[in-house]
Amino acid sequence: MSKESWNEFAAYYLPKVEACLQDYLSKLAAYPRLKEAMMYSVNAGGKRIRPLLVLAVIKTLNGQLNQASLQVAASLELIHTYSLIHDDLPEMDNDDLRRGKPTNHKVFGQALAVLAGDGLLTTAFELLGQVKLPAETVVQLLNYLAYAAGPQGMVNGQVGDIEGEKTALSLAELEQVHAGKTGALLVYACQAGSVICQAKQPIQMALENYGRNFGLAFQIYDDILDRVSTEEQLGKAVNKDQAEHKNTYPGILGLDGAYTKLAQTIAAANQALVSLKEAGYDVRLLAELLEYFKVKD
Amino acid sequence: MSKESWNEFAAYYLPKVEACLQDYLSKLAAYPRLKEAMMYSVNAGGKRIRPLLVLAVIKTLNGQLNQASLQVAASLELIHTYSLIHDDLPEMDNDDLRRGKPTNHKVFGQALAVLAGDGLLTTAFELLGQVKLPAETVVQLLNYLAYAAGPQGMVNGQVGDIEGEKTALSLAELEQVHAGKTGALLVYACQAGSVICQAKQPIQMALENYGRNFGLAFQIYDDILDRVSTEEQLGKAVNKDQAEHKNTYPGILGLDGAYTKLAQTIAAANQALVSLKEAGYDVRLLAELLEYFKVKD
Repeated sequence: MSKESWNEFAAYYLPKVEACLQDYLSKLAAYPRLKEAMMYSVNAGGKRIRPLLVLAVIKTLNGQLNQASLQVAASLELIHTYSLIHDDLPEMDNDDLRRGKPTNHKVFGQALAVLAGDGLLTTAFELLGQVKLPAETVVQLLNYLAYAAGPQGMVNGQVGDIEGEKTALSLAELEQVHAGKTGALLVYACQAGSVICQAKQPIQMALENYGRNFGLAFQIYDDILDRVSTEEQLGKAVNKDQAEHKNTYPGILGLDGAYTKLAQTIAAANQALVSLKEAGYDVRLLAELLEYFKVKD
Repeated sequence: MSKESWNEFAAYYLPKVEACLQDYLSKLAAYPRLKEAMMYSVNAGGKRIRPLLVLAVIKTLNGQLNQASLQVAASLELIHTYSLIHDDLPEMDNDDLRRGKPTNHKVFGQALAVLAGDGLLTTAFELLGQVKLPAETVVQLLNYLAYAAGPQGMVNGQVGDIEGEKTALSLAELEQVHAGKTGALLVYACQAGSVICQAKQPIQMALENYGRNFGLAFQIYDDILDRVSTEEQLGKAVNKDQAEHKNTYPGILGLDGAYTKLAQTIAAANQALVSLKEAGYDVRLLAELLEYFKVKD
């Protein structure tokens, strides 16, 4: 099967990722209210960029897009969803809307939102543990995922974000925050695909580099959107960053500077694909994914 | 080495568990404030019953009490600690004191307390992933731990506890809540030891049964203590359960009824050890641990 355009690829695999998530969550032996809270946020209509990136890396490396790959991808989406629930809590970003819908704690209350997040985080590892891949591969995935999601990765980025609100960050400090907050899980998506396909070290490193720049572009793009969009377009409050004196790329670099930085970051991500191309891989899918960030012109 | 009395055993292995926890946490590449928040609660002076139970099961099964065993035990304590931090949050039990010290959010603020909990939960899986045991064993441990800690185990119990506050629970419902809230991690402790020692199925099942009753006894004992202790003795607020109309064993069964139930549960735990004894194992250590719950006479 040849799905070389990103839109075709996403349209084909998105329903499979959804089915995998629903199938897994619906079978959990948990109180109905907990399952409801967990599934509410999982089903709140994300673009599933992270799991699709796992699958796109596997396709690029000519690996098998089977049930095991889908489960690895789905477990990453569970981690991402937990982070959104906790991030929206009143004591954190205090957001009432997410993707145009009331946030988890607005619907289920703050206690259940904390627990739904804890549940998704923990059960992501359970799903990973059940994947039918060689045990050595599962342990490698476990290590990469726990590192990426934990206090040396995403959780660290969240802390940096919160602590950073109290002061003005330099560009380097802001990039460090986002390397954790957004970058870590996207790097993991590339690692997961590489590990499943048992890619050689230089190939995995090139993909990690792609993922790192992809994550950075993702965040710059998000900051720019917050500045230039309407609430209706975005499905959440806009200009919130500025109102809350958040550290952002447009804030540090100006809006034009942020656009330039975004273009440079996309170029770096494309550059990372060159060595894959030279090794004979078809990188069109991953290159096309970067079109996602075309906000201007 | 023969440490057959529980106190001797605990005194010998407790510093090793502590060293393993400190060593692991101190090396994390995280913001100092996050590490501080995580270590504050890990170092808040727990009795380390769960990791010691892992080690006691391994000793009972004549397994190796090596670095790998210590790391498996320590990773369980990280999960337990995260659950305490989140459980104490204002939106959950809203506790100001834990083991005689201010709770995590009282010291570090609510946002960092959520993240310190998330960090400990995630990094527990990272520590588990690093353990030098056969990959098949690590995956088995991963599956048991994620099940025990997640939405089919401990998180489910927490939800039941919170939802249960709104109504009067039956004894069976209360036991179900505690099977998750307290029991699941203690059952895991027994599973972890069994898996590490590759115990046969009936042996593992007997140990799980011991763990299940141990967990139940633990909770009944805790409820009784809340009723009969002073704040000074307990290092936290007392009579809080009654003041907050929590469902407790003394509440449902009366104080005498709760003592009787405790005695029955301890008897059931001892009964579970009989098949181990018949299979030639020395169960004195695990039997002696049950002395912990002797509150009366």
